Amino acid sequence: MESLHFEPIGVVHSPYREKFGIPRQPGLVSAARMQLELLPPYNRPEAVKGLEGFSHIWVSFLFHGVIAGKWSPTVRPPRLGGNARVGVFASRSTHRPNPLGLSVVELERIEFDEGVVLHLRGGDLLDGTPVLDIKPYIPYADIIPEARAGFAPEPPETCEVRFSEVAEAALVARADEHPELRELITQLLAQDPRPGYRRGEDEGREYGMRLYDFDLRWRVADGVAEVLALAVD
Amino acid sequence: MESLHFEPIGVVHSPYREKFGIPRQPGLVSAARMQLELLPPYNRPEAVKGLEGFSHIWVSFLFHGVIAGKWSPTVRPPRLGGNARVGVFASRSTHRPNPLGLSVVELERIEFDEGVVLHLRGGDLLDGTPVLDIKPYIPYADIIPEARAGFAPEPPETCEVRFSEVAEAALVARADEHPELRELITQLLAQDPRPGYRRGEDEGREYGMRLYDFDLRWRVADGVAEVLALAVD
Repeated sequence: MESLHFEPIGVVHSPYREKFGIPRQPGLVSAARMQLELLPPYNRPEAVKGLEGFSHIWVSFLFHGVIAGKWSPTVRPPRLGGNARVGVFASRSTHRPNPLGLSVVELERIEFDEGVVLHLRGGDLLDGTPVLDIKPYIPYADIIPEARAGFAPEPPETCEVRFSEVAEAALVARADEHPELRELITQLLAQDPRPGYRRGEDEGREYGMRLYDFDLRWRVADGVAEVLALAVD
Repeated sequence: MESLHFEPIGVVHSPYREKFGIPRQPGLVSAARMQLELLPPYNRPEAVKGLEGFSHIWVSFLFHGVIAGKWSPTVRPPRLGGNARVGVFASRSTHRPNPLGLSVVELERIEFDEGVVLHLRGGDLLDGTPVLDIKPYIPYADIIPEARAGFAPEPPETCEVRFSEVAEAALVARADEHPELRELITQLLAQDPRPGYRRGEDEGREYGMRLYDFDLRWRVADGVAEVLALAVD
């Protein structure tokens, strides 16, 4: 059999510091900005020559922190409420035989100040994610207008997002450092990241996730997500 | 660093028996039929439960026969005539730091007679290709209508294909076994698989490629590909 020795060609720097809350598909939260830093010996400007002409790229990555070999033949996708089971190969779950992830992201620009850093928008990657490959998104090959999707034919429904006074004040205080923060949080919570199998049982329950160095706290009640606080640890 | 130990979950059975002549993107030759056989312990029907609802799937595979670690920072894509160089990450060349391939293919049906076999259309995979992962093609996430492509904005131009009398006779003789053969050869040669850097120097030169157990011979002259013969070794 072929050699299956792979090594990371890059690493991702992302506002998503834990798995909980990460959007389930990359394009859903377009305000998320991340950087893909190429690692030596791959961080040579000529290795990305011509890539700047493509608006989007495919990133093949390793699901960070997922133990290889730990897989289940079936998974419970959030899209089905977290109860119904489908085959692992009919899902994009992290618990796969080979923990390979695949995301299409927007390529904003490439920075060559020190090595090679790709500035991305709309990724769903955890901070520290090891990247195995980058390929251009080729519309004539990758857009399949006639494709039909089984249990995920449309984007998930979104909910309304409001900010408490405390959260508004925190946003204003950090606006210089993170000008896109309001949009990022709004898009994130509009996806209602609560686990599917808990919905209906957790009305008004407080949730938290780490975003940059913030502890983002919110709750969902009557179909509205309310940002409660945005605190620095 | 994470574990990078992968193992194949499946293997491809394909009419493409050698690298030369394989279309450069999977959808270009839709008449190509291949089978993806899941390998133990992954060949359990529940592992693909729900996948039949998706018309297309992503196949992550290992470039078969490519030596890992043999890569070049730049490559010469056929789309640029085989002369101009672009970065390996701006291409889908096989000679990548990690020899990972990615193809979207049509899923015709799933067969459960013995283990699990996925019947595919329109792949660009070499016979024997080891498969690392299968994911559903999710239109709302994977179709990016606004995407722009650098040096490959449109499908490659195609050329006219004609069959010699000898080739016609061979086609008729094999029609029962391979009813799609005429369409497959027509789509394949319409892509003009000659190496880009030779075009213009090889008018009328005879080329050959292995397709199933055939030796397919053809030449291109005046912009027309003529199938010369289709012989069994």
